[in-house]
Amino acid sequence: MDGMEGKVEMMNKRRVKSRELFLRFSAFLFTLVSVILIGLNKQSKLIPIKLLANFPPVDVLVTAKWKYQSAFVYHMVATLIACSYAAVSLFVLIANKGGGKRGLASIIVILDLVMVALLFSSSSAAGAIGVLGYTGNSHVQWHKVCNVFGKFCEQAAAAVGLSLFGGLALLLLVAFQALGAHNIPN
Amino acid sequence: MDGMEGKVEMMNKRRVKSRELFLRFSAFLFTLVSVILIGLNKQSKLIPIKLLANFPPVDVLVTAKWKYQSAFVYHMVATLIACSYAAVSLFVLIANKGGGKRGLASIIVILDLVMVALLFSSSSAAGAIGVLGYTGNSHVQWHKVCNVFGKFCEQAAAAVGLSLFGGLALLLLVAFQALGAHNIPN
Repeated sequence: MDGMEGKVEMMNKRRVKSRELFLRFSAFLFTLVSVILIGLNKQSKLIPIKLLANFPPVDVLVTAKWKYQSAFVYHMVATLIACSYAAVSLFVLIANKGGGKRGLASIIVILDLVMVALLFSSSSAAGAIGVLGYTGNSHVQWHKVCNVFGKFCEQAAAAVGLSLFGGLALLLLVAFQALGAHNIPN
Repeated sequence: MDGMEGKVEMMNKRRVKSRELFLRFSAFLFTLVSVILIGLNKQSKLIPIKLLANFPPVDVLVTAKWKYQSAFVYHMVATLIACSYAAVSLFVLIANKGGGKRGLASIIVILDLVMVALLFSSSSAAGAIGVLGYTGNSHVQWHKVCNVFGKFCEQAAAAVGLSLFGGLALLLLVAFQALGAHNIPN
């Protein structure tokens, strides 16, 4: 009976570890693609601008870049941090086959939680600016810009969605840890 | 020795419960004040606007309200949800003197985690718009508005800070739970 129980426990441990591997790898992948999408996001357009009253408008090359909006810079930096952290913690998890030390596990779960907050915060900040780009706000005379920079806005929206998914994967990891799922089979 | 151990365990349980009460009450208080600050946030100003080319500018009463920005609406709704949740969970904690059932504790820690994500997300969305209000963005011709609506911006910033503190209190609660602090004395 003892041998049987030991076997069941080992299988549960392996299942928990596979789940953790899967979620951590998903978080890494989502944030990595998000970082790439933000980093490569750039769109240039010729826009007719009236410089002098009596002359016809002049076409000016205007460029949209993530560096031009502080919220997008925050999104980039935060997602990059989360992506690097996911990679390192994935490496630690794989290297630590024996189950790991309690201290290390505690640090990882706290950092997971901090990354959840960071990812939800940064993607929401970028998302809020994105919504403004799509809709504009007449009360403060902020005009929508996504009708001009459509491709830029779509790519930014995809990056926001992906980093939110990354945050969700880490949120699930913390949830399982908080529920004691690492010890108790469900 | 058994009696001694039992006494120590009881004291630890009481300490953990006091900590939880304190953090949950803080979360409730921070989000409540934040909701009140957002709800009461309104500023009107007379702004000279040129309606016709050959006439002098006309003073127009312009009002800043949280309802005029979708990010502020999101911030209001999310903070209100988190505040109500903190109140209910506080009540459950106080009513559940005996220690509580395992199922209920699991639901609470998951909801705590969801509220952390919600509060960090909504305050960052509102914060991003707030930063834009303070600095503007020349690349997309969004002019700063906080030089005109200073009081409105300050009150919004305070609300963002307070709901972030509320999120932080709940984050600490989840961290303690994930670390198993509810069972293991530190």
